[in-house]
Amino acid sequence: MALVVQKYGGTSVGTIDRIRNVARRVAKTYDEGNDVVVIVSAMSGETNKLVALANEMCEFPSEREYDVLVATGEQVSMSLLSMCLQSMGYKAKSYCGFQIPIVTDSVFSKARIEKIDDKKIREDLKSGTIIIVAGFQGIDKDGNITTLGRGGSDTSAVAVAAAIKADVCEIFTDVDGIYTTDPRIVPEASKMEKVSYDEMLEMASLGSKVLQIRSVEFAKKYGVVVHVRSSFNDNPGTLVTKEDADMEAVLVSGITYNKDEAKISVLRVPDKPGIAAKIFSPLSHANITVDMIIQNVSHEGFTDLTFTVPKSDFKKALKIVEETAKETGAASVTSDESIAKVSIVGVGMRSHSGVASKMFQTLSQEGVNIQMISTSEIKVSCVIDSKYTELAVRVLHEAFDLAKKDIKAE
Amino acid sequence: MALVVQKYGGTSVGTIDRIRNVARRVAKTYDEGNDVVVIVSAMSGETNKLVALANEMCEFPSEREYDVLVATGEQVSMSLLSMCLQSMGYKAKSYCGFQIPIVTDSVFSKARIEKIDDKKIREDLKSGTIIIVAGFQGIDKDGNITTLGRGGSDTSAVAVAAAIKADVCEIFTDVDGIYTTDPRIVPEASKMEKVSYDEMLEMASLGSKVLQIRSVEFAKKYGVVVHVRSSFNDNPGTLVTKEDADMEAVLVSGITYNKDEAKISVLRVPDKPGIAAKIFSPLSHANITVDMIIQNVSHEGFTDLTFTVPKSDFKKALKIVEETAKETGAASVTSDESIAKVSIVGVGMRSHSGVASKMFQTLSQEGVNIQMISTSEIKVSCVIDSKYTELAVRVLHEAFDLAKKDIKAE
Repeated sequence: MALVVQKYGGTSVGTIDRIRNVARRVAKTYDEGNDVVVIVSAMSGETNKLVALANEMCEFPSEREYDVLVATGEQVSMSLLSMCLQSMGYKAKSYCGFQIPIVTDSVFSKARIEKIDDKKIREDLKSGTIIIVAGFQGIDKDGNITTLGRGGSDTSAVAVAAAIKADVCEIFTDVDGIYTTDPRIVPEASKMEKVSYDEMLEMASLGSKVLQIRSVEFAKKYGVVVHVRSSFNDNPGTLVTKEDADMEAVLVSGITYNKDEAKISVLRVPDKPGIAAKIFSPLSHANITVDMIIQNVSHEGFTDLTFTVPKSDFKKALKIVEETAKETGAASVTSDESIAKVSIVGVGMRSHSGVASKMFQTLSQEGVNIQMISTSEIKVSCVIDSKYTELAVRVLHEAFDLAKKDIKAE
Repeated sequence: MALVVQKYGGTSVGTIDRIRNVARRVAKTYDEGNDVVVIVSAMSGETNKLVALANEMCEFPSEREYDVLVATGEQVSMSLLSMCLQSMGYKAKSYCGFQIPIVTDSVFSKARIEKIDDKKIREDLKSGTIIIVAGFQGIDKDGNITTLGRGGSDTSAVAVAAAIKADVCEIFTDVDGIYTTDPRIVPEASKMEKVSYDEMLEMASLGSKVLQIRSVEFAKKYGVVVHVRSSFNDNPGTLVTKEDADMEAVLVSGITYNKDEAKISVLRVPDKPGIAAKIFSPLSHANITVDMIIQNVSHEGFTDLTFTVPKSDFKKALKIVEETAKETGAASVTSDESIAKVSIVGVGMRSHSGVASKMFQTLSQEGVNIQMISTSEIKVSCVIDSKYTELAVRVLHEAFDLAKKDIKAE
């Protein structure tokens, strides 16, 4: 008997029939002798409908009220699931964020969980009750309704799992698990049995959209074993867990890519102390996240600064940078929206040399020019012309033998 | 400067544009120097949609979860109204039932308000904030979400007004106020300037659907002045308030009718102690509300019992009564679905004799046969053949001079 947290996303609870399917799966887990706590998202499309209402009401909806509005989505799905389980003869009880309570800070629309009281959940579990908790929402210390931001239900699930010390946090989704790369690009991509928190963090932030990055941080911090699996079948998915020896034996675990960024270069900036701060402060004030930053060695007192920003912020960023460039005496600003970032990720890199150079070599053999490089302990990212994205992902997947792993696993 | 509670029903907040209209009216009241607390219903149609989801999910939805589900309706409308007011430059803040808190008992779907904490409202009012409170919902002492039942937003409004000692509780609706009778039947029906709590109670329970009866009970208990008025214009509506000398001068204030009941007679029941209990207990166990009950004097140890039940419960009631009748040795059971109850209401009756006989005379002059009569201190009700309803209402309205009042008022 285990204590299992299961999280079902918006697609899994998108219709009455799908909620019935979820109820059957929850009931099966319970019948197998487990204690079950379920975290649900809003029915798919529901949150968008609510957001549309807010946007129709006014251009800049109050953030406090926005959270009050969108939090209703999960309240609807959780009550329906609880009704369904009760009609099947199970004890079930739903809880909003405020009822647990899931206490967050007061940053509306992207609140962070600070504390989860496990008292009510523990009591209900003792009486054999299946508990359903609204994902995505919480309450701040002043009693205001807060939400965790899009995808926040993953974080709710992992945080609840941490609070009640669950044996596993199962994240049900519409894919079978985490793949070595995007199977739409590389059909031979294989499902990973296991992936470490750090690898998952690199992959999540680099464009794999299976798990919300904050939920992985939470899982890592509290050692929650996360099982990403399909809500459409019973196949085992991918375990996101602590590193082990197995994982380090593998050089590279996965290849990711991201086409959502654009590149801006400030050319011939006078290389004086404080110049980087001068250029990046206005961007940070405008809430624009700068990702990769490259500053080359200085020539004759001048340097070039290149960095990437989200495409959605590109125009705004460019305008700001052009103004700052003038003030700092830079020669010019260039930009490129047709770039992609391709990355290799793997904890095995730490103990193996030559991984980066193998990546560069592989790309150059295909005539793919590398525009920017950035590295961390467990990943290497290259910015390339976006038209080569699929090619780059394919050749890297092959070069690092990722398709083979599936054969080993079988 | 006054402390004003305003309640807007589902039609008034039914679309984004209508919510904007409500915001303008609220803002106007605020700009005139008043403190304003607004109670809102769910957007019209929204509650029905949620109820339909519950019914699609299962035949008998859990009552606790049903309340969790339908309570989202008011949460949506209150947040939208608050957003709108803020976008117009006003300070505004919305509160769910649990946030105030509005504490109720634990009878899901028809909870009763037990206590309202006025602390947050008072603090916000001090800072010049317009407060929006979700109608219809509360929270029980165990932290469960509860709802007050259909029309409960009126009760929320009056209860909040009582808790904060508001000067007036304005109920905005789609009619101009309370009329002496249904204007669809009697075009000369006049709007009453004032009506007493007791008269309103009799009229509400007798079929006038403007104000929820529990809200009137609440208003009477705490002396809240209720102003029923139109959300489509600025005309004064009808004040529901304590009796005063003016009111007693008027013999009859209004004529109401109700076609939603059916009549059942148990004939030749042995007239023994406990016989009424025997007949009515099974009905009460089946949750069927019995309205008028008439038992005639006994003849040779037998009596006839006649009573009315809601038409929606008629078949169920008839089946139960037929069984009980057999057991008690009654001769037979007859029933009639085509009846109507016509009533005259007025506090003036207390100090005037002859009101009832004037009613009977008026009906008989038109050849309307009276099947049952029941009286209270301030009303007389007659059950008649439903085909005479409109005729009866018209002649009674004329007989008691109700059309004239409007001329006086102008």
